[in-house]
Amino acid sequence: MPDSLRVALLGCGVVGTQVARILTTDADDLAARVGAPLQLAGIAVRNLEAERDASIDPAWLTTDAEALVDGADVVVELMGGIEPARTLILRALAKGAAVVTANKALLAQHGPTLFEAADAAGADLYFEAAVAGAIPIVRPVRESLAGDRVRRVLGIVNGTTNYVLDRMATEGLDLDQVVKEAQALGYAEADPTADVEGYDAAAKAAILASLAFHTRVSLDDVDREGITGISAEDVDWARRQGYVIKLLAVAERYDDGPDAPGVQVRVHPALVPEAHPLAGVRGAFNAVFVEAEAAGELMFYGRGAGGVPTASAVLGDVVSVARHRVLGGKGPVESSYAALPVLPATAARTRFQLRLEVVDRPGVLAQVAAVLAGQDVSIEAVQQTPAPDGIGAEAATLVITTHVTTELALRVTAEALGSLDVVRRVVSVLRVEGA
Amino acid sequence: MPDSLRVALLGCGVVGTQVARILTTDADDLAARVGAPLQLAGIAVRNLEAERDASIDPAWLTTDAEALVDGADVVVELMGGIEPARTLILRALAKGAAVVTANKALLAQHGPTLFEAADAAGADLYFEAAVAGAIPIVRPVRESLAGDRVRRVLGIVNGTTNYVLDRMATEGLDLDQVVKEAQALGYAEADPTADVEGYDAAAKAAILASLAFHTRVSLDDVDREGITGISAEDVDWARRQGYVIKLLAVAERYDDGPDAPGVQVRVHPALVPEAHPLAGVRGAFNAVFVEAEAAGELMFYGRGAGGVPTASAVLGDVVSVARHRVLGGKGPVESSYAALPVLPATAARTRFQLRLEVVDRPGVLAQVAAVLAGQDVSIEAVQQTPAPDGIGAEAATLVITTHVTTELALRVTAEALGSLDVVRRVVSVLRVEGA
Repeated sequence: MPDSLRVALLGCGVVGTQVARILTTDADDLAARVGAPLQLAGIAVRNLEAERDASIDPAWLTTDAEALVDGADVVVELMGGIEPARTLILRALAKGAAVVTANKALLAQHGPTLFEAADAAGADLYFEAAVAGAIPIVRPVRESLAGDRVRRVLGIVNGTTNYVLDRMATEGLDLDQVVKEAQALGYAEADPTADVEGYDAAAKAAILASLAFHTRVSLDDVDREGITGISAEDVDWARRQGYVIKLLAVAERYDDGPDAPGVQVRVHPALVPEAHPLAGVRGAFNAVFVEAEAAGELMFYGRGAGGVPTASAVLGDVVSVARHRVLGGKGPVESSYAALPVLPATAARTRFQLRLEVVDRPGVLAQVAAVLAGQDVSIEAVQQTPAPDGIGAEAATLVITTHVTTELALRVTAEALGSLDVVRRVVSVLRVEGA
Repeated sequence: MPDSLRVALLGCGVVGTQVARILTTDADDLAARVGAPLQLAGIAVRNLEAERDASIDPAWLTTDAEALVDGADVVVELMGGIEPARTLILRALAKGAAVVTANKALLAQHGPTLFEAADAAGADLYFEAAVAGAIPIVRPVRESLAGDRVRRVLGIVNGTTNYVLDRMATEGLDLDQVVKEAQALGYAEADPTADVEGYDAAAKAAILASLAFHTRVSLDDVDREGITGISAEDVDWARRQGYVIKLLAVAERYDDGPDAPGVQVRVHPALVPEAHPLAGVRGAFNAVFVEAEAAGELMFYGRGAGGVPTASAVLGDVVSVARHRVLGGKGPVESSYAALPVLPATAARTRFQLRLEVVDRPGVLAQVAAVLAGQDVSIEAVQQTPAPDGIGAEAATLVITTHVTTELALRVTAEALGSLDVVRRVVSVLRVEGA
């Protein structure tokens, strides 16, 4: 067997700890699969004295990340954040080391720089763990679907928000209550903004869109709306109509229409029909649903976070890049040849469900319908029900589900509806996906 | 851009036709992704005069498969069957060509010979399309999970039987009726044996088990039971108790107990709890559920058959092996280092549900329970209901769900129960998986 390969870990948080543990306990299996032993060269940390898991040998730790990188065959970056992760990865690539990273924020913001550096050095840059934790999704999209044309990606890629929406649906609780509960259980951060406002999902959406459409999409290109506008009432309404509300990362390619060809990438809560495979994805699980021209509908499901599951994805990448060291060759490089324009939020095409509180008198529906017709928004279904208690006897709730239309047309429509005398309030406007 | 790569197709059935079509229509995209044009060198067929899709240019066709293979960089084998597929693949590998095949029967029976030939030649042998059609499962198991330990694989890998069981459940029809319907719709072959008796699923189980456990499992190692013993009544009983019946390919690794370490691979109908992700896999869809030590539960879902979806998997492999031609390197080789023994059917461990028709008199349950205790079979749940019409007023139905036990213990138990005076009939014995 060839000489051992030196693996350097940058960061010793929940994922790094598990990667170090498995590298040690499963050393024989990993060596057999790679064709050479993997040797843990060290773990770069900021503070040598921090409290750590008992499986971490203090002798592995160092604060000199640069020296560790310089002596490594494979560098595993699990620090998170932009700096010093970015500089250390570029340093590793420049020295010809293979890099494995789980850093979605870095990839979504500085992906092209990193990919160019990897390409120039002829070195591997793998990042399966950056999207949807343990779920193999980067490799399937980048390699398995390389002979197909992806049309659309719908992903539940943030476990915290999926847990929160799930609890709201099953327990009838408000968002704030569930977020507090999730924080108590350790499922949500003390500052939950990155999750509930959709920033985390947006970074993953940018990475998925780049891979799926062979183009460059950065975090700034992603239209983002979190779940803070979702009420217990919205969730209940959805349920009664056969939908669940999910925070989705959506990436679509449009090959027809005025904006074509182009891609549109967004994160927002959406109504998903109960029969859709994404509707059954509960709790902290993630799933990515892919629609491709030849393959049709595919779904990839599993744990989207957590130290141990994410370590599985990291180690799969470590084995892949290490095999290349032993057997020669390298993995796929960034494929951005399609160079498609990224379309603005207003160009997004989807179905919508509008919930209006209207005055209950003759002619109201005609006025509402005329506003939709004026924007060329086609109605799929209308449901009128007596108003709930407290709104007043002369009011009614009108739920309108549209056919596919543009976000722009819908925004103009919703504003026009809101200014009608017969409409008391536009209660909610939700996109309908996967129908 | 480098010179074009010559791609030879062997076979022009439903999959071959779609591969040829996409190679032509998507030539520009494929060239950009590979880094070199892919040129369709020809399609080997038995009969030049057979009727074919209009997309197939007759000039592509040849009956001289050997000459076609000899001039190819990438050989795509879509003939099916053992010969001449086996000889042609060995010929291609010996010449150093990369091979992509969808031939599950050949791999399940002659995998080691083919992998050794590929290894000796330093050539790629890819086979994503051989298991579960369009679903990326070979690459995720072989590469993404290479740093993890797979514990169990549960697959719905035969669309015909899944469609049949699904229709039985939703329409309350008998197997024969649904099979006839499926034949009329083209979902089942005129001779449905390979599907309904589980041979097709068994070949896929052997391939999945080999990959998941880094060992060699051949078709002969797979215990196989089809769905012909499943009645409409079984399906209805299952539904009323919150289960669906699915034909599962099961591959497990046992690291404890008298037989450990070893793998057990089987195909049989099983009760799957309605809340399990596999339970929602309907109609012609396939899904593979993987339990790994670090990753936890994963599921891969999509279309398991059909010319266009399967072509997606084939072309993903073609792009991968072609990239290796352009960029250097090669894909993973067969990993069978674990060399685990394959355990017999009797060593399989699972939960069971026994349905008995018993005499309705005091002491019956005690006698039945004593038989189970005698074989160390632990009871999880018992349900006794009055006998259905026609069996007689003094009879009852007893449904016993066991904890995990061995197939051997269960077989002995079922036989002993059948010989009790108070047991009129062992109506069904079904395994419970995914609970």
